[in-house]
Amino acid sequence: MLKRYNISTEAEGLYNITSYVRQALNESGVEEGLAVVFCPHTTAAITINENADPDVQTDLLFALDKTYPDRPQFRHMEGNSSAHLKCSCIGASETVIVEDGALLLGTWQGIYFAEFDGPRQRHFFVKIIEG
Amino acid sequence: MLKRYNISTEAEGLYNITSYVRQALNESGVEEGLAVVFCPHTTAAITINENADPDVQTDLLFALDKTYPDRPQFRHMEGNSSAHLKCSCIGASETVIVEDGALLLGTWQGIYFAEFDGPRQRHFFVKIIEG
Amino acid sequence: MLKRYNISTEAEGLYNITSYVRQALNESGVEEGLAVVFCPHTTAAITINENADPDVQTDLLFALDKTYPDRPQFRHMEGNSSAHLKCSCIGASETVIVEDGALLLGTWQGIYFAEFDGPRQRHFFVKIIEG
Repeated sequence: MLKRYNISTEAEGLYNITSYVRQALNESGVEEGLAVVFCPHTTAAITINENADPDVQTDLLFALDKTYPDRPQFRHMEGNSSAHLKCSCIGASETVIVEDGALLLGTWQGIYFAEFDGPRQRHFFVKIIEG
Repeated sequence: MLKRYNISTEAEGLYNITSYVRQALNESGVEEGLAVVFCPHTTAAITINENADPDVQTDLLFALDKTYPDRPQFRHMEGNSSAHLKCSCIGASETVIVEDGALLLGTWQGIYFAEFDGPRQRHFFVKIIEG
Repeated sequence: MLKRYNISTEAEGLYNITSYVRQALNESGVEEGLAVVFCPHTTAAITINENADPDVQTDLLFALDKTYPDRPQFRHMEGNSSAHLKCSCIGASETVIVEDGALLLGTWQGIYFAEFDGPRQRHFFVKIIEG
């Protein structure tokens, strides 16, 4: 089963989309398999990280900016090469195991849509595979 | 279905392999499922990023070199530790959703074989799963 | 089939878990499909890299520390934001193709549990999908 979800983002940010992935899984009725969350954009990504302290998200975005800064040598005219870089480093998708009809996430894990070049109208896909 | 593709690389570079993944999918006849693209090398990787402006690829490779430089403290005698590092940061595979017999990629997304230690004779695998 | 494995880690380190993934695959009896290795923690990750020279692992950990250092601006009170960052950059899982009842890894590839905030009692999951 495949589901598409829309998301409106601001500037940069990590958006917790775990509930959407859970909803897609519930609708699918699948008990055992995989859930693949896929971002179809090239300046955004999907990641799994801490769902409790929001300071972790703040720190992640701050450090990614320091690690992958805008550079004067960049040629891409849109001026968002560092967002493209973060996209490739964080990755376009996450694959989560499904067991007993639930996402097999750790206690502190949440699934996040990572916006690196907003604000934008974005979307992402959740694919549930039985097996 | 599993397909293997060979690729000859130069120095560093991002090679657009989307058409090979599409070809594997077409040969499989699968309408709904997943396509997994896997790199069996430890100084190369698979990534998804912009397929339009080639300056994005130039900027990505430039910035990866700045972010993961060769360091005097590296011990690995082959001298390609930064290529190994880029490999782990970009990742060995990408998973793409298959819907209606097509790769569910965004408009600007292409799938790339990322060479960090060429020139070399390389190969990659495409696995199509139905579901 | 789903298997859970426990692992005791020290400080930082890359732990070769390829034999566990192979064991899970053998127990499953699956000949063709996918093996998904998933880390349910937010300061550890799964990666694929060189299995021969242990200096590569030393260099990787050294360079990750340099690339994603602790920063005075970090707000997360636990003081392990750089471990969270490494987790998102390396990624929570790896997907490996299964062919003829074996993991389709390259000659030099091993699967590693990457500890960024040990010592801890950790675990990881291996899911085998047929297809």
